[in-house]
Amino acid sequence: MFFKLLSVMELQDILDEIPALDHEEVDLDEALGRVLSRDIFSPEDLPPFSRSTMDGYALRARDTFGASESEPALFTLDGCVSMGSMPDDIFIRPGGAVRIWTGGALPANADAVVMQEYVSALDQATIEVFRAVAPFENVIQQGEDIRSGEQVLEAGTRLRPQELGLLAGLGITSVPVYRKPLVAIISTGDELVSPRQKPGAGQIRDINTTTLSALCREAGARVTALGIARDAQHELRSLCNTAVEKGADVILVSGGSSVGRRDFTLEVFESLPDARVLAHGVAVKPGKPTIVAVSGKSIFFGLPGHVASAIVVFYLFVRRALLGLGGQRQSTDLPGATARLKRNISSASGRQEYIRVRLEKDSRGVLWAEPVFGKSGLIRSLVRSDGLLVVPRDCEGMDQGEVAEVILLR
Amino acid sequence: MFFKLLSVMELQDILDEIPALDHEEVDLDEALGRVLSRDIFSPEDLPPFSRSTMDGYALRARDTFGASESEPALFTLDGCVSMGSMPDDIFIRPGGAVRIWTGGALPANADAVVMQEYVSALDQATIEVFRAVAPFENVIQQGEDIRSGEQVLEAGTRLRPQELGLLAGLGITSVPVYRKPLVAIISTGDELVSPRQKPGAGQIRDINTTTLSALCREAGARVTALGIARDAQHELRSLCNTAVEKGADVILVSGGSSVGRRDFTLEVFESLPDARVLAHGVAVKPGKPTIVAVSGKSIFFGLPGHVASAIVVFYLFVRRALLGLGGQRQSTDLPGATARLKRNISSASGRQEYIRVRLEKDSRGVLWAEPVFGKSGLIRSLVRSDGLLVVPRDCEGMDQGEVAEVILLR
Repeated sequence: MFFKLLSVMELQDILDEIPALDHEEVDLDEALGRVLSRDIFSPEDLPPFSRSTMDGYALRARDTFGASESEPALFTLDGCVSMGSMPDDIFIRPGGAVRIWTGGALPANADAVVMQEYVSALDQATIEVFRAVAPFENVIQQGEDIRSGEQVLEAGTRLRPQELGLLAGLGITSVPVYRKPLVAIISTGDELVSPRQKPGAGQIRDINTTTLSALCREAGARVTALGIARDAQHELRSLCNTAVEKGADVILVSGGSSVGRRDFTLEVFESLPDARVLAHGVAVKPGKPTIVAVSGKSIFFGLPGHVASAIVVFYLFVRRALLGLGGQRQSTDLPGATARLKRNISSASGRQEYIRVRLEKDSRGVLWAEPVFGKSGLIRSLVRSDGLLVVPRDCEGMDQGEVAEVILLR
Repeated sequence: MFFKLLSVMELQDILDEIPALDHEEVDLDEALGRVLSRDIFSPEDLPPFSRSTMDGYALRARDTFGASESEPALFTLDGCVSMGSMPDDIFIRPGGAVRIWTGGALPANADAVVMQEYVSALDQATIEVFRAVAPFENVIQQGEDIRSGEQVLEAGTRLRPQELGLLAGLGITSVPVYRKPLVAIISTGDELVSPRQKPGAGQIRDINTTTLSALCREAGARVTALGIARDAQHELRSLCNTAVEKGADVILVSGGSSVGRRDFTLEVFESLPDARVLAHGVAVKPGKPTIVAVSGKSIFFGLPGHVASAIVVFYLFVRRALLGLGGQRQSTDLPGATARLKRNISSASGRQEYIRVRLEKDSRGVLWAEPVFGKSGLIRSLVRSDGLLVVPRDCEGMDQGEVAEVILLR
């Protein structure tokens, strides 16, 4: 079977078509970072009554018109508004005022609050006001924040602290969200052992399972790590079946950077029920040997074995698929940073290239990117990196001082 | 008691002196986002043996010198390296080569790998090599990534996926990290009810507890929400005592935006055992009424009641204190974004000012910030915002197109 290399954007477009998972209802306290599966409409006005935003005196704005430092207006003081109750018994007559605090409910026929800084008490029943206020000054009117029946949040919104605050304010304490994708992670290779095992001669500990699990969790997914498949097709096929039985939405198989293993991973993917291979090779460096296939409702990724390459493929494609499955509108994803290059870099790969960089702010607040060199098999170079700098596909390099986009490795 | 307003930086400097909490040991699977409390040294070499980074043939580099398309060098093929075992039985003679795959262990007297693309088999025992390789080409040498005994990670490092990968690679499956700070959250006000309650007349639901809890969790803290203190000193004092009994490292009291309540919060803080007030008022807008006090090992914050103001104070001061308690070097915190202003803004406050903005990338990838206007009591304006744009203290505003720093509201 022959595949032409897809461009980064072609594969991203394919992955963007994957529909979101089904949804579930979660308590507001568990909803941080989750993605709304339905639009939310407000059941009520917020605030539910007109409130003062200052400590001061509620009155009729028109009675203050013309008041100034030199010609204060006199008001008759008529009690005070208790916090947490409606001042139903208070009626502001012309020239009357009541004491009110921040958050207090405005009496029915008051329409403004004058700050206490502009008021002086003549006696217990009379105050002088030194400044005119406009109608609704220092007041948040009933429904000014949100009107009953209004749409307040859209399906596809990732819930940040402030969205949770809004929902709490409206008394919405459980919310419909998309189910979190479940990712099964498989490493392949006769040379690999678990990090908890002592490697024998010629063996090495599996780095990818730990790294990819953490990346998936950061992207809002749940993870089941299935361990290591030996270099035998039936082992990989059996672990892929286990993944599907466990309900995995996404299966990551890493270790196929070697040509032999890549073919082998492809063959296993092709043998899955109703398998459809979406990509076999992508014009990206590192990450060219990436394989993507669909079987049933599961998406299978074959990732490079070198961890630095696997991370690039994760950020470009796997993360995107996970956000899509989780229902997140891509536009709500984090903005990447931009930084200036600290030195010239060459790129003659004919592929979009991702360079590990260390970021540093200079005294003027400008972000600079210093390439971190190192073979892609070295985990150390990733630990030294703050981001992946994007070198566009058809450029032969970039110059010192040039501005480039950076995917942040948080 | 009289306090001068502290500048943002003065208060940040004070908070930066807070020592980190004690530490605990956690399993690698639970360590994502945690902060190392000790330097980590490698117990062994990584990789533990010299490995091939390509599929090809291991040989002695010097035997390939001079080889080219037109004058290939001939090699005698001498078996192949099995993955996951040491090729102890293989001895490369001058002019000899062995088949090897990516990740395979180099036989003892081979020093390079030639990629299979540059090799053609003449018969089962003989290959032609069309390209010379340098010593160590396509090889990662034993200890090239990490040497035994070398420091690999520093105390104060927040563990990202790649740091976890490194630790897994070294077989370090449990790590010493700082304890997560515990934050107790208290809202004050007679007008407040829990989001789960139906507000009576003149009452409104508490937004701050939900919002601040989520912000604290995002900053790596654990949270205990203590509910609402009525406007009575003994209620707030009693909840503060409960917080200390529960072992809270940080106590957030919000709702003191009203002058009366602010004094009241200050009085309660001052009455705590060995209380020391670190700040009473900060030159920042919004956020001026911020109070910070220390009693015993606990840090008490009095935050503005308006949620949009409370969030600014959280990002500037509370988050900083939480990261410090959690042992994180401030320099490892996320870089903020920079964006260009979409319109002129004025600022004559004499205080550092934080403006809510919506961010948008134009077709050239430039980030633009559009101010989101709205009274600070409105939660809606926060939901529309992507960040807080910083207007420096002694400027009278900023012009359209000017570049400003933005704290991202993720």
